Amino acid sequence: MATKQNIEEGLEFIPKFDDNGLMPAIAQDAKTGEVLMAAYMNREALDLTIRTGYATYFSRARQKLWKKGEESGHAQKVEQILVDCDQDCLVLKVTVDAGQCHVGYQSCFYRALKKRSDKELEFIAEKAYNPEEVYKK
Amino acid sequence: MATKQNIEEGLEFIPKFDDNGLMPAIAQDAKTGEVLMAAYMNREALDLTIRTGYATYFSRARQKLWKKGEESGHAQKVEQILVDCDQDCLVLKVTVDAGQCHVGYQSCFYRALKKRSDKELEFIAEKAYNPEEVYKK
Repeated sequence: MATKQNIEEGLEFIPKFDDNGLMPAIAQDAKTGEVLMAAYMNREALDLTIRTGYATYFSRARQKLWKKGEESGHAQKVEQILVDCDQDCLVLKVTVDAGQCHVGYQSCFYRALKKRSDKELEFIAEKAYNPEEVYKK
Repeated sequence: MATKQNIEEGLEFIPKFDDNGLMPAIAQDAKTGEVLMAAYMNREALDLTIRTGYATYFSRARQKLWKKGEESGHAQKVEQILVDCDQDCLVLKVTVDAGQCHVGYQSCFYRALKKRSDKELEFIAEKAYNPEEVYKK
């Protein structure tokens, strides 16, 4: 039963999807701890991820299941799935190859807000691959 | 101008909030790399976070700004704010003391799905503090 106590301190996995049937999932490099990307899963994406051992998300833009790497080859092998206290967010510890972001970087988080600025970014990473070679136009 | 090119490869911070005026923000321990929690920010929460240097979120449950640690004392000093490729998700690199989750753990992600199970969790952390002593009833 999904009581607060069970959700927060229990051993039953009771994932809570939002009104759109989605929950956020954060992919973290199992080896380096780097946060690679954040995306959403619906129930089916989560089930496929658990069953296949490779991350599948739900694309809100395209409104369809999206197996990470289906186009780029940069798949995510899921080593562990963590869930947060209220069971409405996941962290996937994943093993990956070089280049996870479609822009060409290892992580989608390749820019940071500059110190003492609220508008200006700076790059904090270098490209890991050439996306033009991977995503055939 | 918020073109795809500018959003993905530019140096202008153009945070994209969803239809509810929110964007997800992931707090990551700046020292250990541990993902501590995921929450949401509205424009005001983001501005306050940038201005004060301490993480402020927007509580969807309570529909109000929530300065992390305002009740528990477990504030998050923001060292760096990363933004993802499409500028609709943030990673905050934060410095914290012991105990970030209201349940008593250092991270909200204190449970993992057991190997070869789709329903059973296991604890992967021990409590870092006693929440009953911190949250006055």
